[in-house]
Amino acid sequence: MNSFNSYMDIALDEAKEAAKRGEVPVGAVIVTGGQVIAQAGNRTRELHDPTAHAEMLAIRAACVSMGQERLSGCDLYVTLEPCPMCAAAISNARIARLYYGASDPKSGGVENGAKVFTHAQCHHVPEVYDGIDEAASSELLSVFFSGLRKP
Amino acid sequence: MNSFNSYMDIALDEAKEAAKRGEVPVGAVIVTGGQVIAQAGNRTRELHDPTAHAEMLAIRAACVSMGQERLSGCDLYVTLEPCPMCAAAISNARIARLYYGASDPKSGGVENGAKVFTHAQCHHVPEVYDGIDEAASSELLSVFFSGLRKP
Repeated sequence: MNSFNSYMDIALDEAKEAAKRGEVPVGAVIVTGGQVIAQAGNRTRELHDPTAHAEMLAIRAACVSMGQERLSGCDLYVTLEPCPMCAAAISNARIARLYYGASDPKSGGVENGAKVFTHAQCHHVPEVYDGIDEAASSELLSVFFSGLRKP
Repeated sequence: MNSFNSYMDIALDEAKEAAKRGEVPVGAVIVTGGQVIAQAGNRTRELHDPTAHAEMLAIRAACVSMGQERLSGCDLYVTLEPCPMCAAAISNARIARLYYGASDPKSGGVENGAKVFTHAQCHHVPEVYDGIDEAASSELLSVFFSGLRKP
């Protein structure tokens, strides 16, 4: 197993924990020098906070951990393509590499929609690797949303 | 003076306070039913948090105040065109109306760059009113950045 698969496994575990809390199952992990420095699942409902996506919580926790507002050299793993809010936060935080699972044609902002990293107004563009454990991430989301649709 | 000018005055005061703290001078206010429910200035440096833009802090504070993750019917006033992160957060929070001051060709994400509200992946589009107290907002930013450039 490649190291990026093991980090994505941690992100998938965070996504599963989010689902148990009734949150859309998305998880994120931030890694630097082979060490996980932050991990989080989506908590928008629990925290009454529309900004509390997994990536945002992980970035904020990592910055607290590092005592700085930039995460240069750090990698972020997330189970789903980031939305425009999270993609821009990833850029603002100077994340070096972004690894994500499933693409999100409905709400994504990296390869879909706003394509945040493609504009001159984006001052830092991470390396992007998609499709990591894509099937596992997609299945989590499908099971979650099919559960919501049941009477 | 129109009410939107008086709310923008509060946002400008938040921007001035941000400048005094050594932060890029941007301020934001959230209003519902004629009442200010949250106001904030940029605190990215103080908090070591690249997500701590004025709009984000105001949205999070307003959601805590309301005990809910959506701010339907609320208006957000901000001195500068929101970046893509903040624009997407404004959409996620279901803000009804966005009033902003100066446009931001360098980093904006509403009328510039990612143009977050123009894509099918954006599930809520606020009414947008730009150019409110634009000169005052621009002057604050110019003075701040010219001060940084002095030896």
